[in-house]
Amino acid sequence: MKYYAKPLNKLINELSRLPGIGGKTAQRLAFHILSMDEKEVYELADAIRGAKETMKYCSICGNLTDTDPCSICSDESRDKSTICVVESPKDVAAMEKIREYRGYYHVLHGAISPMDGIGPDDINLKSLIHRLQDERVREIIIATNPNIEGEATAMYIARLIKPSGIKVSRIAHGIPVGGDLEYADEVTLLKAVEGRREL
Amino acid sequence: MKYYAKPLNKLINELSRLPGIGGKTAQRLAFHILSMDEKEVYELADAIRGAKETMKYCSICGNLTDTDPCSICSDESRDKSTICVVESPKDVAAMEKIREYRGYYHVLHGAISPMDGIGPDDINLKSLIHRLQDERVREIIIATNPNIEGEATAMYIARLIKPSGIKVSRIAHGIPVGGDLEYADEVTLLKAVEGRREL
Repeated sequence: MKYYAKPLNKLINELSRLPGIGGKTAQRLAFHILSMDEKEVYELADAIRGAKETMKYCSICGNLTDTDPCSICSDESRDKSTICVVESPKDVAAMEKIREYRGYYHVLHGAISPMDGIGPDDINLKSLIHRLQDERVREIIIATNPNIEGEATAMYIARLIKPSGIKVSRIAHGIPVGGDLEYADEVTLLKAVEGRREL
Repeated sequence: MKYYAKPLNKLINELSRLPGIGGKTAQRLAFHILSMDEKEVYELADAIRGAKETMKYCSICGNLTDTDPCSICSDESRDKSTICVVESPKDVAAMEKIREYRGYYHVLHGAISPMDGIGPDDINLKSLIHRLQDERVREIIIATNPNIEGEATAMYIARLIKPSGIKVSRIAHGIPVGGDLEYADEVTLLKAVEGRREL
């Protein structure tokens, strides 16, 4: 990539460090950036810098936020009886999109994975236990991903919390809406049958 | 995308404006940027700003450069008898990669395309004619893309320059090296036969 002038080269190199952006894509993006209006380019650069400067983790739930506590934790109108435990801030966004859940969240920033050397102390779990001292909490909904790590984390949290008498639930696994029974894998189908409900 | 805090939202929006970056990819990139070291993030932002601030077009050849004239135009050791005409700065980089061509370049920034309303005056062509006043120029190699617009541009330039007595050549079209005759399209194969050379 030494066929371009230095600033362009540097831009291509920086862009190609991003995940999923290879050399050719970085080159295409760099040329596009050069062709953009100056104002747009500065807005992009400022957005990158600004996000890094202002975004932090909420001291209560661990979600990404620009205020502390985050907008959800500081929303007094929400249901104080439930906390939904998720792996990442993206999962909070996914849950919020359904517009049904009105409780609070707790972001673990990962899942227990002994294979990768990630134990219970490596995820944001201690602060969840601390939050349970609030007597208004009645239920913990565990919405970790339905894979080995997510399931292990769910089991661990359930065992940890159950002695305190708080209800611990797990989101349902089954056939996705619009999905095809024929193409569902055995484990999903098994979970779907296990989790059947009376009509 | 209103489920994230404002700075993160802004970053996702800015990123998703880039070509080939959809909403999901922008989200993934934004989260990656937040997880990067502060130093790396500032380097990325500065590279974007810096490239836009310093990169300009060479007043002689039209290539992208941070100095004027560009490093190629100001390289006195190059062959002054040939100018290679290309459509974009990327093509200059592609030509330089072969390490064979030692002449100068001229970047058109496009090709003549009546369908898109792009005429000879809309590309960087006038300054090429101006450069031909240098008596040392003996040959113009036209390396525009082998598509309709590129061919039309090549024909136009050839007709424009020929009266001045300067040789005008076109890069060869044919079967790519490593390519398969069986899978070559008819036009390419026709061009390959037309351009055959004695061994």
